[in-house]
Amino acid sequence: MGNRDTAAVLVAGGTGERFGRSSGKQLALLAGRPVLAHSLQACIGADRVGLVVVVCHPDRVSEYAEALGTDLSGIEMLFVAGGARRQDSVAAGLAEVPDRFVYVAVHDGARPLAGPELFDAALDVLDGEPGLTGVVVGHPSVDTLKTVQDALVTSTPDRSRFWAVQTPQVFRADALRAAYTEAAASGREGTDDASLVEAAGGTVCVIEGPRDNIKVTLAGDLAVAEALLAARAKGGA
Amino acid sequence: MGNRDTAAVLVAGGTGERFGRSSGKQLALLAGRPVLAHSLQACIGADRVGLVVVVCHPDRVSEYAEALGTDLSGIEMLFVAGGARRQDSVAAGLAEVPDRFVYVAVHDGARPLAGPELFDAALDVLDGEPGLTGVVVGHPSVDTLKTVQDALVTSTPDRSRFWAVQTPQVFRADALRAAYTEAAASGREGTDDASLVEAAGGTVCVIEGPRDNIKVTLAGDLAVAEALLAARAKGGA
Repeated sequence: MGNRDTAAVLVAGGTGERFGRSSGKQLALLAGRPVLAHSLQACIGADRVGLVVVVCHPDRVSEYAEALGTDLSGIEMLFVAGGARRQDSVAAGLAEVPDRFVYVAVHDGARPLAGPELFDAALDVLDGEPGLTGVVVGHPSVDTLKTVQDALVTSTPDRSRFWAVQTPQVFRADALRAAYTEAAASGREGTDDASLVEAAGGTVCVIEGPRDNIKVTLAGDLAVAEALLAARAKGGA
Repeated sequence: MGNRDTAAVLVAGGTGERFGRSSGKQLALLAGRPVLAHSLQACIGADRVGLVVVVCHPDRVSEYAEALGTDLSGIEMLFVAGGARRQDSVAAGLAEVPDRFVYVAVHDGARPLAGPELFDAALDVLDGEPGLTGVVVGHPSVDTLKTVQDALVTSTPDRSRFWAVQTPQVFRADALRAAYTEAAASGREGTDDASLVEAAGGTVCVIEGPRDNIKVTLAGDLAVAEALLAARAKGGA
């Protein structure tokens, strides 16, 4: 086991619009266990993670805590009430992370296919490069990308420059806090955590993760996730 | 059955570098049938398609023809030798399309999960909008996108403007021919057919297709495709 210098913030729903869409998914069963339990297991299994802050709807805290059990192998775990936007939920989780943690890993509760090795790979890169503020997991775009307006193609940017990124995303804790403080002050919004860190002047790099690290959001995604897990068991990507 | 005014060009390998990587995949079995047979079935099953031109490595023509059988339900089928780049292979296929076809649908042989309804949906939009040159199938980007240089994030563009596009891509036959002629004359390259049509001044629109319309390129993709087919059977996306 490594140095437990990292707190994970696991984003599992807030009080806003996203909640209605995604709350059911967190406890939906995937290979016999709640989706959120898979995502939690990835956080817990990472060598450097010493605390997991699960951010969820305030009314769900006890239900989630019970569903996830208490077999945490010495890892600390907290449940925190989320906010209206994903960004508010991450901020709420971050506020509970003690100063002793050097790094923070943010992960979507609805990404059950990311394994602990992905956390450790990202954290090792961050730990090894003092000039880096954060590391995000993604993969180069495999499809051609188009910019689109009103369903019409406006351009075909060179796809070799583009990566699609997911979570986990890991950061130096102080830099992530500063980025969130700045975002709150300026009203800045981002679709991921790294974009707030980038906007605050941070240096973020990408590392390649598996292409099947999907987010379970639509009804059909659960069957797809189930199938992808089965494919992995058969030696698939 | 509709008006068979469309020729499909099914791109299944050329003479170049791509061949070594992808040739095995075309005949690899997916749910008991070659990957290419699935992709061919989608072309054949589309109401408007009256001819399928299969473009493949010259040494593979007889092997592919045999593997795919001859049960074509009255559809014409040709096998044509491909070129060094995907673009050269499409051009070779296009050269065999008789003038009587109003539309051309280009499809990747390694996309076995696109169904015939996707061809018909794209062709119906194209047929109904005289101002359109082409229609491509894709979906809005679900992941956050980053532009990346030497593994460092250089920007986070607004993902709401971006679509990831796949095949089928359908075009007015004369406009696609003109775009290919222009690309050959100018040395222009594109990662998809629409980009050549766009560069030649064409108007292309997107329609939303399934997110699981993956391209089988890596070894693990076959297991993933198999799993996605199984998920569909269970009512997945």
